[in-house]
Amino acid sequence: MTVRIGVIGTGMIGRDHTRRIAQVLAGAEITALSDYSTDAARKVQQDLVPAARVHDSGEDLIAAADVDAVLVCSTGATHEPYVLAAIAAGKPCFCEKPLATTAEGALRIVQAEVAHGSRLVQVGFMRRYDAGYRMLKRVVDNDIGTPLMVHAAHRNPTVPDSYGTPMAIHDTLIHEIDVLRWLLDDDYVSAQVVFPRRSSHAHAGLRDPQVVLLETAKGVRIDVEVFVNCRYGYDIQCQIVGEEGLANLPEPMTITLRKQAHLQNEILMDWKDRFIDSYDVELADFIKAAAQGTAAGPSSWDGYVAAITSDACVQAQDSGQIVPITLPDRPALYR
Amino acid sequence: MTVRIGVIGTGMIGRDHTRRIAQVLAGAEITALSDYSTDAARKVQQDLVPAARVHDSGEDLIAAADVDAVLVCSTGATHEPYVLAAIAAGKPCFCEKPLATTAEGALRIVQAEVAHGSRLVQVGFMRRYDAGYRMLKRVVDNDIGTPLMVHAAHRNPTVPDSYGTPMAIHDTLIHEIDVLRWLLDDDYVSAQVVFPRRSSHAHAGLRDPQVVLLETAKGVRIDVEVFVNCRYGYDIQCQIVGEEGLANLPEPMTITLRKQAHLQNEILMDWKDRFIDSYDVELADFIKAAAQGTAAGPSSWDGYVAAITSDACVQAQDSGQIVPITLPDRPALYR
Amino acid sequence: MTVRIGVIGTGMIGRDHTRRIAQVLAGAEITALSDYSTDAARKVQQDLVPAARVHDSGEDLIAAADVDAVLVCSTGATHEPYVLAAIAAGKPCFCEKPLATTAEGALRIVQAEVAHGSRLVQVGFMRRYDAGYRMLKRVVDNDIGTPLMVHAAHRNPTVPDSYGTPMAIHDTLIHEIDVLRWLLDDDYVSAQVVFPRRSSHAHAGLRDPQVVLLETAKGVRIDVEVFVNCRYGYDIQCQIVGEEGLANLPEPMTITLRKQAHLQNEILMDWKDRFIDSYDVELADFIKAAAQGTAAGPSSWDGYVAAITSDACVQAQDSGQIVPITLPDRPALYR
Amino acid sequence: MTVRIGVIGTGMIGRDHTRRIAQVLAGAEITALSDYSTDAARKVQQDLVPAARVHDSGEDLIAAADVDAVLVCSTGATHEPYVLAAIAAGKPCFCEKPLATTAEGALRIVQAEVAHGSRLVQVGFMRRYDAGYRMLKRVVDNDIGTPLMVHAAHRNPTVPDSYGTPMAIHDTLIHEIDVLRWLLDDDYVSAQVVFPRRSSHAHAGLRDPQVVLLETAKGVRIDVEVFVNCRYGYDIQCQIVGEEGLANLPEPMTITLRKQAHLQNEILMDWKDRFIDSYDVELADFIKAAAQGTAAGPSSWDGYVAAITSDACVQAQDSGQIVPITLPDRPALYR
Repeated sequence: MTVRIGVIGTGMIGRDHTRRIAQVLAGAEITALSDYSTDAARKVQQDLVPAARVHDSGEDLIAAADVDAVLVCSTGATHEPYVLAAIAAGKPCFCEKPLATTAEGALRIVQAEVAHGSRLVQVGFMRRYDAGYRMLKRVVDNDIGTPLMVHAAHRNPTVPDSYGTPMAIHDTLIHEIDVLRWLLDDDYVSAQVVFPRRSSHAHAGLRDPQVVLLETAKGVRIDVEVFVNCRYGYDIQCQIVGEEGLANLPEPMTITLRKQAHLQNEILMDWKDRFIDSYDVELADFIKAAAQGTAAGPSSWDGYVAAITSDACVQAQDSGQIVPITLPDRPALYR
Repeated sequence: MTVRIGVIGTGMIGRDHTRRIAQVLAGAEITALSDYSTDAARKVQQDLVPAARVHDSGEDLIAAADVDAVLVCSTGATHEPYVLAAIAAGKPCFCEKPLATTAEGALRIVQAEVAHGSRLVQVGFMRRYDAGYRMLKRVVDNDIGTPLMVHAAHRNPTVPDSYGTPMAIHDTLIHEIDVLRWLLDDDYVSAQVVFPRRSSHAHAGLRDPQVVLLETAKGVRIDVEVFVNCRYGYDIQCQIVGEEGLANLPEPMTITLRKQAHLQNEILMDWKDRFIDSYDVELADFIKAAAQGTAAGPSSWDGYVAAITSDACVQAQDSGQIVPITLPDRPALYR
Repeated sequence: MTVRIGVIGTGMIGRDHTRRIAQVLAGAEITALSDYSTDAARKVQQDLVPAARVHDSGEDLIAAADVDAVLVCSTGATHEPYVLAAIAAGKPCFCEKPLATTAEGALRIVQAEVAHGSRLVQVGFMRRYDAGYRMLKRVVDNDIGTPLMVHAAHRNPTVPDSYGTPMAIHDTLIHEIDVLRWLLDDDYVSAQVVFPRRSSHAHAGLRDPQVVLLETAKGVRIDVEVFVNCRYGYDIQCQIVGEEGLANLPEPMTITLRKQAHLQNEILMDWKDRFIDSYDVELADFIKAAAQGTAAGPSSWDGYVAAITSDACVQAQDSGQIVPITLPDRPALYR
Repeated sequence: MTVRIGVIGTGMIGRDHTRRIAQVLAGAEITALSDYSTDAARKVQQDLVPAARVHDSGEDLIAAADVDAVLVCSTGATHEPYVLAAIAAGKPCFCEKPLATTAEGALRIVQAEVAHGSRLVQVGFMRRYDAGYRMLKRVVDNDIGTPLMVHAAHRNPTVPDSYGTPMAIHDTLIHEIDVLRWLLDDDYVSAQVVFPRRSSHAHAGLRDPQVVLLETAKGVRIDVEVFVNCRYGYDIQCQIVGEEGLANLPEPMTITLRKQAHLQNEILMDWKDRFIDSYDVELADFIKAAAQGTAAGPSSWDGYVAAITSDACVQAQDSGQIVPITLPDRPALYR
């Protein structure tokens, strides 16, 4: 069976997912597109999927008979209503992060999905599909004993002036928040943020770098350096320290070059290159589950926990205090 | 357009390519299968592609109206007739290595394709599609100046008793023969083989390891260690030394683990894992070209040159001498 | 001129320094030994320096006419009186860590040396003489821009039952406390300690691992993992993050071995091997300065600051709070 | 006992050894100096060892009553007579490479030492004292099983115009010739040299790079790339392939720096920095043996074998043929 997919939002990521499903992955086809700019949707249709229909609204697209499953790639504020509409229609739905712009919104989605009674939503936390993180997960589960600490870093060479201090949490740390929970099979109980000396390369109004300290229910202590003006590259580091040993996320594969008095490996400068392969894998997983009328991978619950945890981190940025993180009981659907 | 593909030979690699086209890659479907054991073909059909038809012979399959392109995955001795039949039918044809079991056979395929007037054949030299070799190619072309030397190694942990000394060339070195020509954009002019002290782990009758010395038309000197009882892993090394610097093929991505007094990275033991991703990429390339009625990637000419070079290396094994390698003019089709 | 040295305390480290000066280093000779066990001192004399005299007390040794300079290698509680006696005698004095068992004691030494008017004391913080830290210092000073953060780790495979939670500061972290100040040319203003889930390999009563968070006057944020039951090795890590780049302390030099499906490097298990070369270098530095009647390298002030900082860290272990660190003005002698 | 040493030849290396013995190492003092330029010897005396006597000739120095042992650091052509004179005087003698400028000359020294009846000569093959090679020796002896192959490289960034093709053997490869025999505990039976495409950075008249192929009595096959215009650094590589695994000489210890889109380690440009520590260790070994009236480390026999092997390699450069290497029986003194 070929899954017929509609894409809501045909900006950079929506266009790229359209190409991915049309040209790279087996098992699905793009039958519908929509965008708040219908012209933009039409452009993507002409370029990539001439047989697809362009809808006037995401709601129409979700309702269309030739749409089995939905990709929500529109701007963050519209995620919640589109995902709720997809759930209401009983159609599997892949939603780019964030699941909703507030924890309350994310919780409404969780509740709707629980009411539906089976999983329909996959959140676009693609790192869980990265080959390196998957290797790390296997090693954490098998080789290093009980995890005790995590030392991580998320570094960008630079950010635009529109990037403010809380975005270091909502846009940047959010990936560590999700992937570390998954790696550790654990939840957060507190957050603290400390601010080192500010980099002179940070624009006015941005406190950069930051060190976020998280504590989990099992007692694991996590430190994540978030440094978005590090200049030298887009660099994602993750080290898990266990009772029996210690494992590091692999560096991306590169050529070792000996030249001009240096042994050197290139470091990526563009975040889009770092997890590029994982987009293929996450969508293949979505297609596979959607063919069965359900969803797998990062869930609404994961999206909700990420939202709650992010809010606590932002509060910790503001207060300088250790902020407790409390979660409602996890619904059976997500256990 | 969806390319309709027939697979001849449904053993390990034929079955895997069937799965790949049916379940992983966009743009193609499997419509036909054949095998010298029709039961084997039927098993694959039931498991993976229930809608496909099982043919009594490869010739029937090639002739079938619902077959746009052919994958030849049968035993080596049958490659030549099937590829010639595909060319005669004007259908794009992907042929696992070797293109033919003799240089003369490979040359007949070249001549048939030249007579046809456009490319139809892709040979399964998958290393050209490996992400690491592609990175190396880019660096060789841009960063290290004129190549002068290559130091390479092809190591297997062990081989079965059926593996004899010439197979170190025909089955093992053959990959370096092709991929180094491609990396250097060059051809070989001589071969020499020296035999180090024999490993006590080599079975009786196998001279292992060997060091193959190749010289190219541009004067590059290549040494390739072929060691198929190295015990420790399946390990492919390639270092290109240029006038301005030196580049190494990347190691496969692995977790760095600190445990039990060692900093350690796993080395693959199974050759099937080493280039697994490149099979997807080579077939995606085949599908893309086949949709246009042609072929790209490693050509019949490349298969023929590999055969000529292999023969010279085997002669060098026997004689202990430096064996010259001469090629006919390269037909315009392959320039 | 050959510096005539007396060694107080002929236990493991005293014996080793005696050998070092007698057999390895130019420019000095051992003329006197003492130990609270005179028999022990006599044993070292017979084994290594038959021409040396064994004194009944450290005070006698310090006063001896044929002693130009003193090494204090006795138990920690005796360091303060011996160092004060050496200062009173106007003789250069190398004192193993700690300079004194209390910050007050260290301050008395500082005051005595200031009263003397020139440097006489070198404290045995040998890491400043390690080739790796020296490389790191050069890079921090030249290549990475203003330092903003430090991520460090101090791991031991195991500790004896006598090792209690505060020893993680006084015996273990003390080295990072000194060497990071030196690397950064900075002082500490606060300390915080968080305790991850306890390793099940820690003996009862020891909270292990710990993460110590330090803040400097210039705003650098430091996290040091102290984990003394890490099992896998004695492993010292130090990463300095600057505005322009990031530098890591080198791993100790080892053979890369490919064997049994692993690419592997040995990790040291014994701390005594890790900085072994730096003992030669620190004592060569002591001999060189002593020949001029003075001292260089880590000073009494450095010993005092280490004591003050250690006390704050232990207080932070107990309270779970952020503990401020305040220092008196640095005397001109140490600027 | 303090060994009283005379240094013949006070050029760069002689001056440096004088400093080493006077200022760094225990157990010896410089009592005598000579140079064909007495002024040059006097300058070193004034700068470093004011108490030493300057002799008019090396012969006088060797004969002096206050000289227990001799360092021959003069130009190559004078090594043989000075070493023979030292043997005649029964004084331990450290001789910088080459032991003699001809194999015959080296053999005369061997014969004189054999006639003397005990070892007196150490040749300055310092790599045997390098920490990295010593680690490699331990691993070769214990961890990788029977050695089968060696892949090595000796690269210099550039050479002066006076450096001709045979110097690639006599001045450059000579170190590999000695150290590989020592690592493998083996002797050479044949040599072959192949010339890759010439680097455009090689000056007219120099064939660079070269690949030297050596075969040992035990059947080990060795390839050494000698490339003295490699531009990027002074880089010494050595990989030993054994039946059970494979070991690499460590890279020199360096800082790993992340900066400007690169993960980078410095490569040394100056050969003098590469083995600098090993000079201390080789002379400490000489002093220790000389105190017993004998010599250890690389022997006259090793110097002679290096000369014989070098001659064969130069012949192989000229002829393009495989040149056999035959040695007389090894005298009992050197077994």
